Amino acid sequence: MRISELAAESGVPLATLKYYLREGLLMPGRSQSRTRSDYGPEHLERVRLVRALVEHGGIGIAGAHRILEALDSPPPSRHELLGIAHGALPGTVVEDDAADPDPDVAAFVASLGWGVEDCAPAVHRLSEAVVRARAAGIDLPEADLERYAAAMREVADVDLEVAGRAATASEAMHTVVVGTVLVDPVLLALRRLAQESVSATRG
Amino acid sequence: MRISELAAESGVPLATLKYYLREGLLMPGRSQSRTRSDYGPEHLERVRLVRALVEHGGIGIAGAHRILEALDSPPPSRHELLGIAHGALPGTVVEDDAADPDPDVAAFVASLGWGVEDCAPAVHRLSEAVVRARAAGIDLPEADLERYAAAMREVADVDLEVAGRAATASEAMHTVVVGTVLVDPVLLALRRLAQESVSATRG
Repeated sequence: MRISELAAESGVPLATLKYYLREGLLMPGRSQSRTRSDYGPEHLERVRLVRALVEHGGIGIAGAHRILEALDSPPPSRHELLGIAHGALPGTVVEDDAADPDPDVAAFVASLGWGVEDCAPAVHRLSEAVVRARAAGIDLPEADLERYAAAMREVADVDLEVAGRAATASEAMHTVVVGTVLVDPVLLALRRLAQESVSATRG
Repeated sequence: MRISELAAESGVPLATLKYYLREGLLMPGRSQSRTRSDYGPEHLERVRLVRALVEHGGIGIAGAHRILEALDSPPPSRHELLGIAHGALPGTVVEDDAADPDPDVAAFVASLGWGVEDCAPAVHRLSEAVVRARAAGIDLPEADLERYAAAMREVADVDLEVAGRAATASEAMHTVVVGTVLVDPVLLALRRLAQESVSATRG
């Protein structure tokens, strides 16, 4: 199909498609003449993925580049794959001069017995989030954090089962990277729905 | 304290404090002279809250205004309070011309038996998130969504218990509004930590 048809089919404006092409987020079409290129289903799939990541996943162009590169060359083991997938996600780069995680948060993570490394990016991210919430007057005592952690472990069980069902490593990578970013808003919407339900039951 | 001391104490630059004052997000200090105002602990608390909401909660100035107004005049019942709190949160305004929620998602929500209204903003939000994930190749079969929902209901149980512990309606409102926005990143960080742990156990 022509690029105008790709725009109509994907619902992404022509100017945005040209921007994706310039930024290297969309591979060029097959050249048909000096002024015309042909685009196939793989282009349509890529456009939908880029749009989902950039517009709705809260990921910048650089983040989308990292994720697309990782998707194009998945590693052999599933666990290694998860590590790379996590590294490609936004908010997981720990700066060299980043402060150490809050000692209480680090101790809490150790107490979970999950066997994750002290220096894992998610520990830094958790520490930052807890410190910010506390600074804004949300206490988050350890007993509450433990229950949140137990619930999110059930979420992770589903996440990993879904990734395990993938037929190929590339598909598993796609599920981990895209699923982590795009299931986040699903979970947060479910949290609000559940709050309404629990509140009505109690109220 | 002087505004320069408020800046030092809160870690928020003077220019940003002046911006908060201009935008009405920070109440004026007590006027001491034509060029000097006095700020107290209530200003420090407000600055920390505004910073948390605007810089880390992904909320714009307009969203912060709505939340601060709701905090300043909490409603009498806790359930009503939750409704107002949710309305003040980002992503919960449903435009008049918004599409109806996806019928499959609406049917899924009904099947949960949570007693939430079809037209609740969180149903729209869930529908949008599920449709976007599916468009990007993440299937989300109903059995997976049910398990995600069960986990997020446990999260909501904690959320409402925390709000129930608050001594005053104003404090409960603060917990619901600020806690919902600022605990989101805590939950997402825990999800990633749990993924690493589950993956290592299985790998």
